[in-house]
Amino acid sequence: MGKALIIGAGGVASVVVHKCCQNSDVFEEICIASRTKSKCDALKEKLDGGKTKIQTAQVDANDVDALVRLIKQFKPDIVINVALPYQDLTIMDACLATKVDYVDTANYEPEDTAKFEYKWQWAYRDRFEKAGITALLGSGFDPGVTGVFSAYAQKHYFDSIHQIDILDANAGDHGYPFATNFNPEINIREVTAKGSYYENGKFIETDPMSIKTEYNFPQIGAKDIYLLHHEEMESLALNIKGIEKIRFWMTFSQNYLNHLQVLQNVGMTSIEPIEFEGKEIVPLQFLKAVLPDPASLGPRTKGKTNIGCIFQGVKDGKPVTYYVYNVCDHQECYREVGSQAISYTTGVPAMIGAAMVLTGKWKKPGVHNIEEFDPDPFMDALNQFGLPWHESFNPELID
Amino acid sequence: MGKALIIGAGGVASVVVHKCCQNSDVFEEICIASRTKSKCDALKEKLDGGKTKIQTAQVDANDVDALVRLIKQFKPDIVINVALPYQDLTIMDACLATKVDYVDTANYEPEDTAKFEYKWQWAYRDRFEKAGITALLGSGFDPGVTGVFSAYAQKHYFDSIHQIDILDANAGDHGYPFATNFNPEINIREVTAKGSYYENGKFIETDPMSIKTEYNFPQIGAKDIYLLHHEEMESLALNIKGIEKIRFWMTFSQNYLNHLQVLQNVGMTSIEPIEFEGKEIVPLQFLKAVLPDPASLGPRTKGKTNIGCIFQGVKDGKPVTYYVYNVCDHQECYREVGSQAISYTTGVPAMIGAAMVLTGKWKKPGVHNIEEFDPDPFMDALNQFGLPWHESFNPELID
Repeated sequence: MGKALIIGAGGVASVVVHKCCQNSDVFEEICIASRTKSKCDALKEKLDGGKTKIQTAQVDANDVDALVRLIKQFKPDIVINVALPYQDLTIMDACLATKVDYVDTANYEPEDTAKFEYKWQWAYRDRFEKAGITALLGSGFDPGVTGVFSAYAQKHYFDSIHQIDILDANAGDHGYPFATNFNPEINIREVTAKGSYYENGKFIETDPMSIKTEYNFPQIGAKDIYLLHHEEMESLALNIKGIEKIRFWMTFSQNYLNHLQVLQNVGMTSIEPIEFEGKEIVPLQFLKAVLPDPASLGPRTKGKTNIGCIFQGVKDGKPVTYYVYNVCDHQECYREVGSQAISYTTGVPAMIGAAMVLTGKWKKPGVHNIEEFDPDPFMDALNQFGLPWHESFNPELID
Repeated sequence: MGKALIIGAGGVASVVVHKCCQNSDVFEEICIASRTKSKCDALKEKLDGGKTKIQTAQVDANDVDALVRLIKQFKPDIVINVALPYQDLTIMDACLATKVDYVDTANYEPEDTAKFEYKWQWAYRDRFEKAGITALLGSGFDPGVTGVFSAYAQKHYFDSIHQIDILDANAGDHGYPFATNFNPEINIREVTAKGSYYENGKFIETDPMSIKTEYNFPQIGAKDIYLLHHEEMESLALNIKGIEKIRFWMTFSQNYLNHLQVLQNVGMTSIEPIEFEGKEIVPLQFLKAVLPDPASLGPRTKGKTNIGCIFQGVKDGKPVTYYVYNVCDHQECYREVGSQAISYTTGVPAMIGAAMVLTGKWKKPGVHNIEEFDPDPFMDALNQFGLPWHESFNPELID
């Protein structure tokens, strides 16, 4: 069917590459490109020999000219961006210059702020439309599958959705008293940032971690959940007609929050260097060095994630409640693709989103969020490629 | 009256020097000696000009020959050891060689174990007796004043004491989420060491921090207290006739224990060096560098300590309960001598103990624990030199 250029070679990229190779009718040829070519080569070596042909390349995703050169040379039908969110715009610029479709999993944020907003990418709408190319934004799990779930609920079960609660639970246990999946600085930013929710046409800010409740998740049990800001609320508020309220909830254990708080209290999360034995050392960097290597967590993480949406609204004049969710097992993911569920649940939808565009099912010039497309083929693909979903019409609700 | 050689120039030594200068009839001349002479000079500079004459000297307290040379040169009547507990034996050796009386505040422990025991110092009994010199062991607060309180209770209020509960509360607040008064390694050792108490002729070991209760302290209120091992139980078990049970309790806040636990969990208290940016760094050393400097705590610590003993026993066939304690205010101490209450409550009794020996009140060749002497002049001196005590015959008891 076609050729995909995959930019990035981290945990999510690895899942994308595995999944493209499982879908070789669509992905006949891929090129894995990142700043560190050896990482791309390692992935190629692991997966070479199947039906999908694999190339690798070195590229700096901040450098539009280098990206354009690579695209002109490999001639992909689509670019799958699983690099850093800071690099969304340069990659979109290169796609515009070469008239190639684009998919990513997380919206652009400037490197110096922590502001998750679509405005920078939405500013490309006209240019993509005029160029006749499709940009599919946020095709991970959340954002991504949560938007597909919303479009699916809208299409099949509701005349009007009044409320969406997005619930993201990770009940994984790596067996360490404390470890982070990624940069602890980002973890800290997450729990110290203001929360927000959408209600009656506007976003309402909340103090960090100030809204907390408990939810009894199917298959993983009762967990503390906290209201956070999350980027898909911005597009869902625009695209789900009649919506009155959207909230995003994430699980954090008391133990995790306590460790983070203490480390912050004593100054170990500071990014201000201190003088130590004649050397400038950033405490956060030193903390990362004493904490378990995130790469070591994959093989030892047990338990499951559960991410889904609860919809409340009306169909044929009657109130309807609908919960759709995926449960993903860390160890099964690791056995299948060598990454745990956090990377898996982002990488699988990235491949599916790219396949939707590549097969023409979701081909629509312009810059689009995922809930703007027909959800049915994507929902089928989730079942086919490792993220089966479950539904309930009588879920526990959140006050 | 006489001359004292003070070995050490830390927080406790500073209090001893201040207090000797307040008691210049007894301490006509002092010499402050430590490894770092500039610290001694700084103390001299601060206190020079009063009646007590002050000299300073450099000395390595691990080096018996150097100590002997200094003693022969300065010719003190007594040596006040407020150096490190590891150095008790070398200083006692130097006193034996020069026939000079000796006082310390904490019992000897070998540097490589964490075993607080009197056996090493008690082994000097015969030699001190034959040399005609007095060694007064443990003349701080606990051990120290707690032994004097015991002797005082025994002398005035009991025919027989059956039970002693020693209570050490620090309700000081330095305003930091977490800081340690001294090496966090020692703090951690303290809370991870086995506890023990004395009952019916033997010591019973308990799991670390496994016995916890609450006590409502006069002047500072209700605090969590934990049963710990503490050195004075060993000598009190021998010296208080008829004693059946001795326990030692110390306050720790949940916040303090939580911070210590998290830092231990993440590996920041480890003394095993890790490789960091091409350099071997000990995590605990780096932690000390990010934590507030202990020297900065003095001026900002508010609140009080309360240390005392509850005695239960019999007088004239009737049951008697007696609680005697001192309450010390961190800020008042700091205003008076530039050190907070932790150093103050140790340094004042060290000066008083030395004065007892120097004035001949407690002159008794051999090696002795503090409760072996007549407590009355020491109790008077506590009131005179800043550690007034209070008593109650109807205290709350600990189960």
